[in-house]
Amino acid sequence: MPTLDRHDAVFVLDLGDGENRFHPEWIASVDAALDEMEKSEGPRALVTAATGKFYSNGLDLEWLAAHGDEHLDYVNSVHGLFARFLSLPLITVAALQGHTFAAGAMFSLAHDFRLMRADRGFWCLPEAEINIPFTPGMSALIQSRLTPQTAHQAMVSARRFGGREAAAAGIVDQAVDEGALRTTALELAQAHASKAGDSLGTIKTRMYAPVLTKLRDTTNPLG
Amino acid sequence: MPTLDRHDAVFVLDLGDGENRFHPEWIASVDAALDEMEKSEGPRALVTAATGKFYSNGLDLEWLAAHGDEHLDYVNSVHGLFARFLSLPLITVAALQGHTFAAGAMFSLAHDFRLMRADRGFWCLPEAEINIPFTPGMSALIQSRLTPQTAHQAMVSARRFGGREAAAAGIVDQAVDEGALRTTALELAQAHASKAGDSLGTIKTRMYAPVLTKLRDTTNPLG
Amino acid sequence: MPTLDRHDAVFVLDLGDGENRFHPEWIASVDAALDEMEKSEGPRALVTAATGKFYSNGLDLEWLAAHGDEHLDYVNSVHGLFARFLSLPLITVAALQGHTFAAGAMFSLAHDFRLMRADRGFWCLPEAEINIPFTPGMSALIQSRLTPQTAHQAMVSARRFGGREAAAAGIVDQAVDEGALRTTALELAQAHASKAGDSLGTIKTRMYAPVLTKLRDTTNPLG
Repeated sequence: MPTLDRHDAVFVLDLGDGENRFHPEWIASVDAALDEMEKSEGPRALVTAATGKFYSNGLDLEWLAAHGDEHLDYVNSVHGLFARFLSLPLITVAALQGHTFAAGAMFSLAHDFRLMRADRGFWCLPEAEINIPFTPGMSALIQSRLTPQTAHQAMVSARRFGGREAAAAGIVDQAVDEGALRTTALELAQAHASKAGDSLGTIKTRMYAPVLTKLRDTTNPLG
Repeated sequence: MPTLDRHDAVFVLDLGDGENRFHPEWIASVDAALDEMEKSEGPRALVTAATGKFYSNGLDLEWLAAHGDEHLDYVNSVHGLFARFLSLPLITVAALQGHTFAAGAMFSLAHDFRLMRADRGFWCLPEAEINIPFTPGMSALIQSRLTPQTAHQAMVSARRFGGREAAAAGIVDQAVDEGALRTTALELAQAHASKAGDSLGTIKTRMYAPVLTKLRDTTNPLG
Repeated sequence: MPTLDRHDAVFVLDLGDGENRFHPEWIASVDAALDEMEKSEGPRALVTAATGKFYSNGLDLEWLAAHGDEHLDYVNSVHGLFARFLSLPLITVAALQGHTFAAGAMFSLAHDFRLMRADRGFWCLPEAEINIPFTPGMSALIQSRLTPQTAHQAMVSARRFGGREAAAAGIVDQAVDEGALRTTALELAQAHASKAGDSLGTIKTRMYAPVLTKLRDTTNPLG
């Protein structure tokens, strides 16, 4: 389960050391961590990180297969997670130390900045390969954060981007040596902690208004 | 007239060896080829190619001048061609061996990928020079596939991009030696043939929903 | 106060030699210059330039503090300035010789092309730092001209881009030696003077229709 820690002004949300898929309890735990963080005042920023081979593999397809009747509620809760991150009133940095796939990759795009380990691990949207179309909300999120060329290639060809390729394509902001990844993420977050506040929240909410509308359309999340 | 051929899983649509302008019969012939292709099942992908000096020079202005009363129907049919390509449920690759101008350039943008001969030929939107404004649908198509900076430069300055410049600007995915162009296109298409299917169609349809809406607005195609 | 000059087909609008903030009289003076320019016929283009340390520092916050009751009218007049530039029926080139900040930076984005002095001066959107959220119209303008990654970084982190960094990020089209800046801008404008006319106006108006709608929404400019 995700855990929240704090270093000076920077909160660190550890997503776990497994595949870190979005089980309903995992999502509830992330939401609780954000609730706790939002109670604090003053300069603050957020780093999300994980340990092991995966940053996150996205949707919990196993749980979903066993709970088909809760499909729409589940999609809405994932959309809600993306929307919440996309509009957080503080700077968020994703430290991608391992595989970042599917909804895990989308989750990373809902952060302000992404750093990725340079030598190992892939960022990938495999949906076209595994025959799961992106929801309109997911599509809008991805397209709002990548250039048209990169979004198209990532979404229709399921290309696996290594760290350096992801940086070259503008998917992540920087590829970093494994040993320096978490420190670099903490420093970047610390440098922008003073920007936390309502203005930043308003800036992000206005920038991504059409995406947030789609992600929060709970009556018809599958389009 | 365009002809359809097949190599393993890859269909090759040859656009012709002239200027390959969009005469109504040329459009009907492309549509018929797509109809035939869509009847097939299993892994498949599409390469469009041409021979000679031109990939395509776009609208058939000569025919249009002689059929002014069919102007709107003609624009709608061109928009329909773009919309159909943009949402085809298989991977499409344009092999640009020669000049790719105006609506020919837009047609290339409706493909998933573009490869362009490196040493000769231009990709160009001359509309600002010849005083033919882009329709809202054309504008939306171009802007959905290029970065804002590239779209703006291409659309207001009528810049002619050579192969390497087009690759650097993200207009095409790769500039390729003339001798390797068709082979590279076939290999790229073959590599993604397994992605053909409804999911891919849905992915593309959702990605470009606002563009498709404009291209299919047959009541007011000129805005 | 801004002054209008002419060199062959190129109008040069000098924004001033101070901070060149958008005082209401400054805006009226720019509008009058554009009115005069639009009376001319034939090939023409526009360069905006300034002298001294600043290109423009944006909103006149001092005037605004003293005229709180005119806040909405003032925002509408700034939005109107952006909208007018964004849709001018001729090619516009901003020659950024000095600091280009906040609404001054947005003003530069409403031009067709931007050239920036390479060795000194910054292009910056400090809004996230000074707690002034972008209006929806401003946000739409910025996001319509920059890649998602660059827009996001510029808007949430208030990064100061030097000339070479701004060119690398696609914010400006070229970083130029100080001595060559105005000449290069004049040459670029002259090269495209023949494109002036209604078609170019229509092309730009259609490209930025959603942005123009937001900038011209005078009933609710703050969202």
